[in-house]
Amino acid sequence: MKWEECDRIGIEKALEQAHKSFAEGGIPIGCALVGSDKTVLGLGHNERIQKSSAILHAEISAFENAGRLKASVYRNATLYTTLSPCSMCTGAILLYRIPRIVILEHVTFLGGEELLKEHGVEVIVHDNKECKELMARFIEEKPEARQIFFFR
Amino acid sequence: MKWEECDRIGIEKALEQAHKSFAEGGIPIGCALVGSDKTVLGLGHNERIQKSSAILHAEISAFENAGRLKASVYRNATLYTTLSPCSMCTGAILLYRIPRIVILEHVTFLGGEELLKEHGVEVIVHDNKECKELMARFIEEKPEARQIFFFR
Ligand SMILES: [Ca+2]
Ligand SMILES: [Ca+2]
Ligand SMILES: [Zn+2]
Ligand SMILES: [Zn+2]
Repeated sequence: MKWEECDRIGIEKALEQAHKSFAEGGIPIGCALVGSDKTVLGLGHNERIQKSSAILHAEISAFENAGRLKASVYRNATLYTTLSPCSMCTGAILLYRIPRIVILEHVTFLGGEELLKEHGVEVIVHDNKECKELMARFIEEKPEARQIFFFR
Repeated sequence: MKWEECDRIGIEKALEQAHKSFAEGGIPIGCALVGSDKTVLGLGHNERIQKSSAILHAEISAFENAGRLKASVYRNATLYTTLSPCSMCTGAILLYRIPRIVILEHVTFLGGEELLKEHGVEVIVHDNKECKELMARFIEEKPEARQIFFFR
């Protein structure tokens, strides 16, 4: 595991987004897209419940909130997500050729990490205690949580 | 190739969406999500230019416009898209376990068709003349088209 200077910021911002979603009654998944110069390019959280959205996962929200960026910006960015990315978000990471992602938890859900690695993306799993506690609390307090988790 | 009753509707609606986007000055890619009972569940077109969006590809827009549907609805639906789906849209199709997709053109861009097939999705390529002509016109009239095509 190779920590970069931007990682503290990215992890903090992604966690903040997850807490924000939880406080709104939503699914506590957050994401931060951070440039190599530590610029926060975009932040997002899951909006499945808040906006009754089928597509606004944390990662997709972060990409959208970042706006249309230059290729070179994406290609030097790191994406921080509190939960292992689903197939749609995995595809978005590949679309924008993000070279490096940091995942704070992949026990509740294991997403497209292998596909990312096959395409040369550096995948770092950071076993984050705060993130796991938030997810455990969500699952405990919301019995329906597992069903609504991503989709369906 | 196995045509279903819903296909005429799906193809027509996807093309309508592509034309609509072109008329708006956008990228002419359209999508329709159609249920097995021929219900149009959601329509969308590329909104990259119109909304300066990084994520609103035709397929993602169609999923969003369809709202949150039951698993069983997705699993009996067909997705019609005028252009072969990029990795993000491919991932969205897998996320919602859409069993069947119809692509009207895959010459301008060849997307994640192999990954879809590997996951058991029926992929039908319909060599659609109207769609190809629209795409050719877009590329001819907009010299910058290739660059802005999807991303970057
Ligand atoms: Ca919110
Ligand atoms: Ca429009
Ligand atoms: Zn996702
Ligand atoms: Zn796409």
